[in-house]
Amino acid sequence: MPLWTVHHTPGIFTDDDKHQLAAGIADHYQQVGLPRFYVVTLFHEMRPEDFYVGGEPCPAGVRITIDHIARHNPDQEARRRTARWIDRILQPHLEGKAGLHWEFHVDETSDELWMINGVVPPPGGSDAEQHWAKTNATSSY
Amino acid sequence: MPLWTVHHTPGIFTDDDKHQLAAGIADHYQQVGLPRFYVVTLFHEMRPEDFYVGGEPCPAGVRITIDHIARHNPDQEARRRTARWIDRILQPHLEGKAGLHWEFHVDETSDELWMINGVVPPPGGSDAEQHWAKTNATSSY
Amino acid sequence: MPLWTVHHTPGIFTDDDKHQLAAGIADHYQQVGLPRFYVVTLFHEMRPEDFYVGGEPCPAGVRITIDHIARHNPDQEARRRTARWIDRILQPHLEGKAGLHWEFHVDETSDELWMINGVVPPPGGSDAEQHWAKTNATSSY
Repeated sequence: MPLWTVHHTPGIFTDDDKHQLAAGIADHYQQVGLPRFYVVTLFHEMRPEDFYVGGEPCPAGVRITIDHIARHNPDQEARRRTARWIDRILQPHLEGKAGLHWEFHVDETSDELWMINGVVPPPGGSDAEQHWAKTNATSSY
Repeated sequence: MPLWTVHHTPGIFTDDDKHQLAAGIADHYQQVGLPRFYVVTLFHEMRPEDFYVGGEPCPAGVRITIDHIARHNPDQEARRRTARWIDRILQPHLEGKAGLHWEFHVDETSDELWMINGVVPPPGGSDAEQHWAKTNATSSY
Repeated sequence: MPLWTVHHTPGIFTDDDKHQLAAGIADHYQQVGLPRFYVVTLFHEMRPEDFYVGGEPCPAGVRITIDHIARHNPDQEARRRTARWIDRILQPHLEGKAGLHWEFHVDETSDELWMINGVVPPPGGSDAEQHWAKTNATSSY
């Protein structure tokens, strides 16, 4: 469910950095009970000539869009908490990079318009979802 | 209106496979009355080192995001039907690929924040929309 | 906040064209009071074999998705006005290109699920936002 799409300019992430960031993201969602394989993270490297901030080519930029599907925040305070933990995931991977513009936002979409490997994922918190989490794979239920 | 964005790892689709999948998607929306040219399908090939599932590089993955603009589902059952027909479009193109992780989700956005070739598309089901469908082109109305 | 993602086929934009378009987009949001650096514009060049309109490879296509986060339209008329000014930004950059399919749509997402450089952006219209606009940079507030 969570789909993280990371657009970044060259020189921000090595392949190993990407792997570590993607693993850190998956760790978080797994800790709150989601099947680990729900977490997909995509990286697009863009030239500064294809990545503009304020109308100017950006030498060092990271722009992340996140789609949340399986779980939604019920209210403003929950949304703010969600933004803060996303920030905590990202900080160790981005802090200290001089002159970096980095930004994320989250969209929330319907879990009824979502399928994995041809299967409708089980309801959040259900026994079936816990089984998917334990086996880290889809199965009929 | 429907925008299908397909991220995939190498070796999943040939150019001919992409063409066939894109045509199959357009067929479906045309059958339910939409102008065929409303359907845009974009393919991004990603290295496994840029495509992580559960925090690990994915050797064989397809992650599809779909934006629905011109038509929205009124309720839960309609959303579930929509997910099922999307699954039926995709299955013939993806089934039997060993070890493939494939997943889609749909977002629904406002048809009032949408234009094609500088023209506001006509209301869903209107005579003008049917004319656009028949001519497969935008025109003033 | 506004994130413009521009998918286009080869030969539509030079790097200089991209720069001018990105600057024109930033100009608009700055004129209505937003910090200029809120505006991020990303360009993805796609082969026609990766860009299908109506199920056929598109020799000349531009498909733009726009995420609005910091400001939302309160009603239908406001949404239509927003679509028209986006069209006015784009027209000078796209008109007169023969056979071009171009299309945009906008999604509106929560400003509570959004951070820049590890900081929650200030409320729309606040003194702090005006300070961010004047300095064109994030700061604590």
